[in-house]
Amino acid sequence: RINQDRLMHDIHSTCEWGKGEAWGDGPTETGMSRLSLSDTDKQARDWFADTTTSLGCKVHVDEMGNQFAIRPGLSNEEPPTYAGSHLDTQPTGGRYDGILGVTAAVEMLRTLNDNWIETNHPVGVVNWTNEEGARFPMSMVSSGVWAGAVPLEKAHNLKSVIPANDTATMKSELERIGYLGEVAASYKATPMAAHFELHIEQGPILEAEGRRIGVVQGVQAYKWFTVTVKGRDSHTGATSFQHRADALLTAAKMILASHKIATKHKALASTGILTLRPGSTNTVPGFVQFSLDIRAPLDETVELVEKECRSAFTALAAGENAYGVNDQCHPSDRQCSVEWATDFVNPATHFHEDCVSCVQQAGSDLCGGGEVSGKDIGAWGKLMTSGAGHDSVYTNKHCPTSMIFVPCRDGVSHNPAEYSSPEQCGDGANVLMGAVLRYDKL
Amino acid sequence: RINQDRLMHDIHSTCEWGKGEAWGDGPTETGMSRLSLSDTDKQARDWFADTTTSLGCKVHVDEMGNQFAIRPGLSNEEPPTYAGSHLDTQPTGGRYDGILGVTAAVEMLRTLNDNWIETNHPVGVVNWTNEEGARFPMSMVSSGVWAGAVPLEKAHNLKSVIPANDTATMKSELERIGYLGEVAASYKATPMAAHFELHIEQGPILEAEGRRIGVVQGVQAYKWFTVTVKGRDSHTGATSFQHRADALLTAAKMILASHKIATKHKALASTGILTLRPGSTNTVPGFVQFSLDIRAPLDETVELVEKECRSAFTALAAGENAYGVNDQCHPSDRQCSVEWATDFVNPATHFHEDCVSCVQQAGSDLCGGGEVSGKDIGAWGKLMTSGAGHDSVYTNKHCPTSMIFVPCRDGVSHNPAEYSSPEQCGDGANVLMGAVLRYDKL
Ligand SMILES: NC(=O)NCCC(=O)O
Ligand SMILES: NC(=O)NCCC(=O)O
Repeated sequence: RINQDRLMHDIHSTCEWGKGEAWGDGPTETGMSRLSLSDTDKQARDWFADTTTSLGCKVHVDEMGNQFAIRPGLSNEEPPTYAGSHLDTQPTGGRYDGILGVTAAVEMLRTLNDNWIETNHPVGVVNWTNEEGARFPMSMVSSGVWAGAVPLEKAHNLKSVIPANDTATMKSELERIGYLGEVAASYKATPMAAHFELHIEQGPILEAEGRRIGVVQGVQAYKWFTVTVKGRDSHTGATSFQHRADALLTAAKMILASHKIATKHKALASTGILTLRPGSTNTVPGFVQFSLDIRAPLDETVELVEKECRSAFTALAAGENAYGVNDQCHPSDRQCSVEWATDFVNPATHFHEDCVSCVQQAGSDLCGGGEVSGKDIGAWGKLMTSGAGHDSVYTNKHCPTSMIFVPCRDGVSHNPAEYSSPEQCGDGANVLMGAVLRYDKL
Repeated sequence: RINQDRLMHDIHSTCEWGKGEAWGDGPTETGMSRLSLSDTDKQARDWFADTTTSLGCKVHVDEMGNQFAIRPGLSNEEPPTYAGSHLDTQPTGGRYDGILGVTAAVEMLRTLNDNWIETNHPVGVVNWTNEEGARFPMSMVSSGVWAGAVPLEKAHNLKSVIPANDTATMKSELERIGYLGEVAASYKATPMAAHFELHIEQGPILEAEGRRIGVVQGVQAYKWFTVTVKGRDSHTGATSFQHRADALLTAAKMILASHKIATKHKALASTGILTLRPGSTNTVPGFVQFSLDIRAPLDETVELVEKECRSAFTALAAGENAYGVNDQCHPSDRQCSVEWATDFVNPATHFHEDCVSCVQQAGSDLCGGGEVSGKDIGAWGKLMTSGAGHDSVYTNKHCPTSMIFVPCRDGVSHNPAEYSSPEQCGDGANVLMGAVLRYDKL
């Protein structure tokens, strides 16, 4: 059993670096704002390197700043079984997303050491860089490079989108904070026997159903786009609706249409970023750019929603109707143009059976559920699909992978008020360690 | 008759300060980006002061940086008859909006001097500060202070909204560029006998009807608001539509509803600024703020559109339907909140009969239309209402006022491609001078 108090201490003491907005009165009742490769991310990284080194691990950093700590096994012929996640956060994120997964993996190292446990093969802990995709707009980009799915150069050249007007790239920031490692960012240079990731659910299901552990079988498909709408700057007082090409009104229609299309297909479509020009109360904006994030359990559904959005956006830019959005709108003689750029494609992921069953059995061990397998699972747990992407999506391409979810209050995540109780965090850490040890025995 | 070439030279040489985006190949085929109280605005102001002084005027500056140049008359008992406008522009504005009115007034001074014309009373030229309301978000703010309609302190404390994160106020910028004058900004300290303003139409009517001169009888009513929508930051992948309070989707619905409401009442509703937080592709925004500009010829119509927008926005924030905007949207268990702040109120303006008829007669003089009065006007001109606000709105509160419009290409304004031909500019300048001389004789 892991030490729950020690785990919570690691979480909250490292969360001093990049502390965000308060949501309650207590000293730990704040969110996090630890953008990837920022000064506070460097502090958290230094802690990770120092702590795992002092626990007897060999630590190395790759060209994407991914940190790998390896605890030797009885035999060191085979690659390590890894546990890990990420230490970066959203600009207004919480204390658990990613952070729980890394600190629980460090707590696993402490527990193995305390109990003089020797594993058959080495055990590793990993901190992946810029998982959130908040600062450098590609989520899981560094596990993506490791997996060979994202070209190194493309990742290195990603430009910071927060703070506004920042000119930093991933590479320049890796250099600045001293985390541009020399080891190639690749599954060949840093092979893994398996990858386990503990994470908060980021949704409301486990809490609503009163279950302690989510056994994650896969991740839904998603695609990210940047949509650019161009119209014509004009005077808000002197230009009739007839004579406008209003890029913002058109973008508003598109956002609404994407929501209706996603609703129809039981999918998700979301816009999190929107910028416009010139940005003056009495000028109709001639330029708008917005992000579009489409998700669904099946790849086909994402494709379908994308296809319908593309034709709806084209129609709306031309002043035609789509999904009733244009009803009662004023016709215009002028058109807007619309362009799409695809920023990120993440097909639906199905985790490896062996890893899923290690997690399932470790959950049952903790909760006293006896032997379980396949769809058979006790009241303590649930087999589920992740709504969010995780680095495990990419590790799964090169080694057996699974994830463990624990409930979070109200399903809230990417929000300062994100919260899982010490018991919920402890449950997750125990299942994480259990799954790693079970896999080590396989 | 004024000297058209000299006028165009003044326009284009002063437009070197704050030159904007190119729209054509010629050296003068660019827009303007001369934000109020910027370094380039200071250059234009220095030109105004030097030029009018060298033409024999006494020049003074008031506490709002308004510049007044006075050319003595035969008698100097009565206040001057003024011509003027503004030298600041939108961030992506053109070479004529405001600039034409000031340079034409300066050209009037040159023409009076060249022809040794002595007027009965003094003649003045004025450059009003921050007419656009683009940098400091209150249009016509400095003529507003002059008129006693805007408190000096409120105006001085206005914060810059462009560039983003700028902390400058009107007062700090007036001090910085050396234009915080000592004369009280007031119609009492700087009285006017009358105020005439030449301006491009900023709409398509004169061009479409082939008329040379718009005789402006008044300005439509308008109101500016800032609307704040608060929801909840949440994960775009792990949060179902049911569990969201999506501030951006809700704001998009509001913008669309405001457009439908304005369409219904033959009014205008426009959003030119929209900002959101936190601004990450995979976070549903919990905070959105946008500007709303409502206009109509009648005050009652503006009030009605505002009232209907207020109740529609309240309904949409609560997840209820309004104007069909919510049809086929996914219901949610969570609500957004909405708050309104009123930034600016400009009731419908009716200009003074005497000034309107001076403009009408001066237009007819130029175009060979003979005697005209009341609604009787030749094919050369049109009696019209301005869609945009102008400093003349405020001067009209304390002295007889009217305006002259000239056509602009395609009705385009607040856009780099804004254009009026040299002949159109010359027409306007001639009518401006004619109206001032006619009023001087009254
Ligand atoms: N867990 C998480 O927030 N991952 C970021 C990628 C995504 O948006 O799903
Ligand atoms: N003419 C002009 O652009 N005035 C600014 C005030 C307004 O928006 O009407």
